[in-house]
Amino acid sequence: MESQNRLWLSRAVEKRESILNSIPGKWLITGKIPSVEEQPDVTGPFVRQFLSSREIEITETDAVGIVAKTSTGDWSAVEVTQAFCHRASIAHQLTNCLHETFFDAALSDAKLLDDHFAAFKSPVGPLHGLPVSLKDQFHIKNVDTSMGYVGWIDTFEGNKDDARKGTFESELVQELRALGAVLYCKTSVPATLMSGETANNIIGYTYNPKNRNLTAGGSSGGEGALIGLKGSPGGFGSDIGGSIRIPAAFNGLYGLRPSVGRFPYEGTANSMDGQCSLLSVLGPLATTARSVRLLFESVLSRKPWIYDPLVVELPWRQYQEEEIQSLLSTSSPLCFGMLVDDGVVKPQPPVLRALQVVGSVLQKASHEIIEWKPPSHSLCVPLVEKHWYLDGGADIHKAFALSGEPLAPAMSVRYGAAATTEANASEIAALHRKLRDYKKEYLDYWMSTVVQTRTGRPVDAVLMPAAPYAAARKGKFAYAGYTMILNGLDYTAITIPVTTVDATIDKVDEGYQPISDKDKSVHEDYDPEIYNGAHVAVQLVGRRFQEEKMLVLAEYIGKLLSQQ
Amino acid sequence: MESQNRLWLSRAVEKRESILNSIPGKWLITGKIPSVEEQPDVTGPFVRQFLSSREIEITETDAVGIVAKTSTGDWSAVEVTQAFCHRASIAHQLTNCLHETFFDAALSDAKLLDDHFAAFKSPVGPLHGLPVSLKDQFHIKNVDTSMGYVGWIDTFEGNKDDARKGTFESELVQELRALGAVLYCKTSVPATLMSGETANNIIGYTYNPKNRNLTAGGSSGGEGALIGLKGSPGGFGSDIGGSIRIPAAFNGLYGLRPSVGRFPYEGTANSMDGQCSLLSVLGPLATTARSVRLLFESVLSRKPWIYDPLVVELPWRQYQEEEIQSLLSTSSPLCFGMLVDDGVVKPQPPVLRALQVVGSVLQKASHEIIEWKPPSHSLCVPLVEKHWYLDGGADIHKAFALSGEPLAPAMSVRYGAAATTEANASEIAALHRKLRDYKKEYLDYWMSTVVQTRTGRPVDAVLMPAAPYAAARKGKFAYAGYTMILNGLDYTAITIPVTTVDATIDKVDEGYQPISDKDKSVHEDYDPEIYNGAHVAVQLVGRRFQEEKMLVLAEYIGKLLSQQ
Repeated sequence: MESQNRLWLSRAVEKRESILNSIPGKWLITGKIPSVEEQPDVTGPFVRQFLSSREIEITETDAVGIVAKTSTGDWSAVEVTQAFCHRASIAHQLTNCLHETFFDAALSDAKLLDDHFAAFKSPVGPLHGLPVSLKDQFHIKNVDTSMGYVGWIDTFEGNKDDARKGTFESELVQELRALGAVLYCKTSVPATLMSGETANNIIGYTYNPKNRNLTAGGSSGGEGALIGLKGSPGGFGSDIGGSIRIPAAFNGLYGLRPSVGRFPYEGTANSMDGQCSLLSVLGPLATTARSVRLLFESVLSRKPWIYDPLVVELPWRQYQEEEIQSLLSTSSPLCFGMLVDDGVVKPQPPVLRALQVVGSVLQKASHEIIEWKPPSHSLCVPLVEKHWYLDGGADIHKAFALSGEPLAPAMSVRYGAAATTEANASEIAALHRKLRDYKKEYLDYWMSTVVQTRTGRPVDAVLMPAAPYAAARKGKFAYAGYTMILNGLDYTAITIPVTTVDATIDKVDEGYQPISDKDKSVHEDYDPEIYNGAHVAVQLVGRRFQEEKMLVLAEYIGKLLSQQ
Repeated sequence: MESQNRLWLSRAVEKRESILNSIPGKWLITGKIPSVEEQPDVTGPFVRQFLSSREIEITETDAVGIVAKTSTGDWSAVEVTQAFCHRASIAHQLTNCLHETFFDAALSDAKLLDDHFAAFKSPVGPLHGLPVSLKDQFHIKNVDTSMGYVGWIDTFEGNKDDARKGTFESELVQELRALGAVLYCKTSVPATLMSGETANNIIGYTYNPKNRNLTAGGSSGGEGALIGLKGSPGGFGSDIGGSIRIPAAFNGLYGLRPSVGRFPYEGTANSMDGQCSLLSVLGPLATTARSVRLLFESVLSRKPWIYDPLVVELPWRQYQEEEIQSLLSTSSPLCFGMLVDDGVVKPQPPVLRALQVVGSVLQKASHEIIEWKPPSHSLCVPLVEKHWYLDGGADIHKAFALSGEPLAPAMSVRYGAAATTEANASEIAALHRKLRDYKKEYLDYWMSTVVQTRTGRPVDAVLMPAAPYAAARKGKFAYAGYTMILNGLDYTAITIPVTTVDATIDKVDEGYQPISDKDKSVHEDYDPEIYNGAHVAVQLVGRRFQEEKMLVLAEYIGKLLSQQ
């Protein structure tokens, strides 16, 4: 037992060191990194000290801006890639956000793109020369996929002898290459993926770069921290309960959860793979809404339904974009539902303020806001959560057992010391019926708002918190109900960064009477001094498959916010 | 025990008699109905003897033709409804195809439609005044839904005290009413729905009207027999393994299986409700392809995604229709894959001939046909079948136990004497992974045909048998692999009636060497004398969500066949 303990630990340490060693020596931070207390925020001026002004210019350009330069030959793919490799290396040293780097392969891919451009004076595709980061669920040739499990190191999803090890590439990876993207790193995840924070026995804990007292979120936490630090202009995560939107919200990013079947998941590693009662989805995160759209629309342009059997034949629907743009140009344009509080856990003061800010800019722009009073989210969130335990934790425990590594404390709470009884087919069917009934009620409620709006239509979209926190304190992420509800409904949702915590404004609500233990603990966790400076986001929600509409609206709202 | 036996039997008999009693006395057949031997075919001249020439004119017009008359005031909805009520009554007496009639309600609905037309000179909707039949899974107010279970009589899905009893309507029912359709009867199903023949303890056995030696198919067998006898111009069934396409094929009809999520299932009774690993879908059956399209497109025009949370936001895609029409007008138009034999059960001679006929008319019209050699269907069909036993038969046995009625012999074979062990979540996930992998291989194969075709595209559609039989002999339906494969793949499939069995042409292949026991028994079941005159159909297959394309092609092929 002792020797097995030492074995997993030594493999974890070895892997951790190999990540660090994969960073060129010239990019290692030599001085002491200041403590959290000294320097909670390592974005902006702090990270810039490690970069040249040219590197800063490149890495602080958004994906759309970069592609505009690389597609016209203004910037070389090699130079852009180099700059992001450097900034990602710094980001990792500051936040533990990477699982893999493969800078040499990236630079050699970038070189090929530059050669192509030199020869043909045209880009390979709409993502020509754009570095794209990927959550460590994607398979890339010659690169490990540990997904945070020590037992997965140097295997294919835990299997040492699988012929796909080192050769197989996930479908999205293949499509990104065809689009001209440059892949250069994979980002940290919590082992299991079932967590709103990112921690595992390999890289330890991924911190929020904007405020290192706080979590970067999870499970796409490495993506959140890396893109938040501008070590990547955009990347892809996955979301079964908020795993794209939580890290996006916590790091001031736009992060899209498309509906199941819109985006290709084929060939991507996963927890509880084959559980298809409530599916995880892939989606993009980026610093701007237009960049999220670029990533999303580019992948759709590859017709993912011809290589992923679970993708619906739904190209980017220009007519939907035109519909919403045309509504936005009228004098009494849209009506938004606004849910401030789900009745289970009330958001902390900065989130409440962010919702007010968004509501107010929308109203100023002549949009209507109505109170959103759907069938109680408390009926649905527990149904969603049940889907994560259908196998009694069998798959999770098997993955940990491969190396003998212990479960992280939060995972222990969730999945216990060992697997428990599995749900059977009848129990699963009963769960499906309940969830279906709830979806029907919610849809009926949505459509019923037609009588409340001034537009003659049901609400066009709904605004709600992405989480009750700006970002939770380390180890304190305890409630994902605001994101999980939308996995339950399979609705389109995108995070919109709104503001940052201001300790002088976002005071504790001293008179607040908590409505539950969880509500009480979230309320008590809030401390303006500790949270100061953290990003605060909201969630914009459309019905199923309304990605075009939500992307247009997210960009529109982002513009309104920036014009305040 | 004896008394419980008597109880279920008396309830079954009472229900059977009540169906017959619901038919107006003037429409009861008074003379002796000839035996099967005397008169195997009760369609055409035989059934016409019971009808006026005006009734024949109306009922032998297809749905598109009827709507053209009722929407312009040429024919009244009342007269049309009356004619179909009459013909359906005769059809039931000849084949046992009805579970419910509600002619008075239908006539009163038709009257309202006529009043509307008189007042506004315009139809209520695209199905104005069109009688539409429904498989006995749909809930209609004031009408029972037994689904063939004695224990469901006078209950809501087996529950006597459910407040929805007699009041609730399935979503599709509500939409059909809004479209102007007239609902007037519900058609027979095998209890469980899991059968390619239609038999239950209430109505007995549903015979194939074109050849009463044979089955009408199942599970939408009542729809098949009724529409085959032109007692309905079109209706809706459901399909989890072929339950629309088998009865459509066996009765000379077009029957569409759309992909999961295209068509609203909300609020419809089902077996193993909540099993969503492999979902049943609803779809239309009718005598012409254009009528199937009318029913399909009309329902889509109601935007089913705004009332059924499981429907994808996919309106009728005009651009897809235009694409395929434009290809059809070129000189070297399309390439079809042709699968003659799935390697498990070889089709009987009439089906082989039907495939040749279709291939030959397509080639004559300059289309290319290539051999279809996909990943073996034998790998997928057993995976599909596993989905029907995930709960060990618990749901099925519970429904039979409500009354104590015995399982039909075919169902006993399938589900045993009592429920067995249920699959657990891990086993279900493993099944999902296997099926997903197969889907991926199949899709890759489909796309790979691009190098084989002259069109520069992968095959546009695939032709294959709908069943190894023209229609199976009573009690002999034994293989649904040709339809099940497409449920496994979730592909769009539509049946196309091609010809009828001709004993003088469709000889037994005396030299045939069977490849399996099942193949042998299907081979041996074929007897040209017994099968003579039966309908023979093929299946046209598109990938997921290619309903527009397949409907256009089915109509096109139907035209080619009629011009031979």
